[in-house]
Amino acid sequence: MSGGGAPIYNRVALIGLGLIASSMYWAMKRGGVAGHVTGYARSEETRETARRIGLCDTVCDSAEDAVAGADLVVLAVPVGAMGTVAEAIAPHLAPGATVTDVGSVKKEVIAAVGPHIPEGVHFVPGHPLAGTEHSGPESGFSTLFDNRWCLIVPVAGSDPDAVARLTGFWQALGALTDEMDAEHHDLVLAVTSHTPHLIAYTMVGVADDLRRVTDSEVIKYSAAGFRDFTRIAASDPTMWRDVFLTNKEATLEILGRFTEELFALQRAIRKGDGEHLHAYFTRTRAIRRGIIEAGQDTDAPDFGRVKMDR
Amino acid sequence: MSGGGAPIYNRVALIGLGLIASSMYWAMKRGGVAGHVTGYARSEETRETARRIGLCDTVCDSAEDAVAGADLVVLAVPVGAMGTVAEAIAPHLAPGATVTDVGSVKKEVIAAVGPHIPEGVHFVPGHPLAGTEHSGPESGFSTLFDNRWCLIVPVAGSDPDAVARLTGFWQALGALTDEMDAEHHDLVLAVTSHTPHLIAYTMVGVADDLRRVTDSEVIKYSAAGFRDFTRIAASDPTMWRDVFLTNKEATLEILGRFTEELFALQRAIRKGDGEHLHAYFTRTRAIRRGIIEAGQDTDAPDFGRVKMDR
Repeated sequence: MSGGGAPIYNRVALIGLGLIASSMYWAMKRGGVAGHVTGYARSEETRETARRIGLCDTVCDSAEDAVAGADLVVLAVPVGAMGTVAEAIAPHLAPGATVTDVGSVKKEVIAAVGPHIPEGVHFVPGHPLAGTEHSGPESGFSTLFDNRWCLIVPVAGSDPDAVARLTGFWQALGALTDEMDAEHHDLVLAVTSHTPHLIAYTMVGVADDLRRVTDSEVIKYSAAGFRDFTRIAASDPTMWRDVFLTNKEATLEILGRFTEELFALQRAIRKGDGEHLHAYFTRTRAIRRGIIEAGQDTDAPDFGRVKMDR
Repeated sequence: MSGGGAPIYNRVALIGLGLIASSMYWAMKRGGVAGHVTGYARSEETRETARRIGLCDTVCDSAEDAVAGADLVVLAVPVGAMGTVAEAIAPHLAPGATVTDVGSVKKEVIAAVGPHIPEGVHFVPGHPLAGTEHSGPESGFSTLFDNRWCLIVPVAGSDPDAVARLTGFWQALGALTDEMDAEHHDLVLAVTSHTPHLIAYTMVGVADDLRRVTDSEVIKYSAAGFRDFTRIAASDPTMWRDVFLTNKEATLEILGRFTEELFALQRAIRKGDGEHLHAYFTRTRAIRRGIIEAGQDTDAPDFGRVKMDR
């Protein structure tokens, strides 16, 4: 996290003002990372909210106005809308500017956005792996990216200086950074994010559907494990629809492996094979330890509460 | 939570000294809920740990000694061990004592324990819906049950006074209580706990297995959703093996519905049916709101961190 240094970009345009963009704004202000920050959201209600809470130095009524003169343009809209937005702003981009995005899928975004980027403008896709189950302009906070990874996914011909500058920008927002190619990014995310979200949505849907167990029972007794699924399954529906539609291949591959493993465990249950179950459940503990050691979670027992003194 | 009132039981025996039993002990001490508390664990190491940290007023070297003279005996061992333990202590139970358990499955526990309960001793099964991903004698804390549900599952012929006394005991430990029959209990738990756990274990296993994504990638990038699965999948393997082996029927039923729904979503992804996905993901948000309104979780954005001021 930088402190009082010179801004990394003089003028940053945030296109889309949801959880990620609003957190970027507060993190930029915290670290003095950007000079002037403009923002644009398609919905007038969102723009009004942004003006009311002081989100962005200037809230513009069009994406074209927001990007004018910006040396960094951040596309922070659902993945399915990236191409359209890129097309609209393309003629208004300043020479030498960098365009990045924060989409959860990279191959499709690169295919949708890349062709619209004019000569002399740098395109450096990115993906901050941070979020909460909340969405909208009021959900952002300055510390969202602290100690979280931001993956930078340069495309063929990405200018090394533009990549380095964007990398420094994310680090100044508090993030750790890594580079990865788009294909691998989409597979890793299918494992660590996309498939888990789909499974959580499915489990919550099953509970909602089951007539023999009432909604109030599901809600009252959720602390036994289900609650963590509902948190994940409360994420923004539009964002997630687009993720699954655009990371189809990798998600379907991981889902295939998931159902294969699930069927093996299901068979072990049916046959009463306790050894298989015990060995499987023991193995999965190791990954948890790794995550705690890597500082990506704490060892505090959660399930919704903090450990108290005895 | 009672305060300075008279103890509800004069002598309580905890058989098994893991997360639940140790939390019960600290909660009993907090509320003055029990007179003398004895404890027994099969492993000598656990008994030594208990003595070292002051868990239980007396740690006994046999279950028989622990239950002698107790007016409440709590079976807090894995579900698969309940029958054996009940058989061992049966001849030593005091007339008029109540035997309860804290197992996550009720039909099989009742079938395994019930036949060993002697004439003149009350058997009132129970299940506190509380826990963390930690286990063992050092994992307990006094507030674990506060505002969590404890389901009381009376059996045919359970004495109403014994049921009422046990209910009051759990309330004095901080819990909310409800009564339910064993069959329904096992179905509700299959939805809210057992199937979610199996799914989490499976997803973590898939990630661990995938050669094209390294372990370190899975760990570094876990904040994107996967991390919550690893927390659930870090729970005690023996406990969970027994849960699946003993709640086979209901778990397999819910798993069947889960895979049915999952296949429908998978098909929507394959066919690019965004409407189906969006509608599904919107519906699941409502349950989350219900859980927050019911006080079983907070609205604070989690994903591993607390919301900060802007």
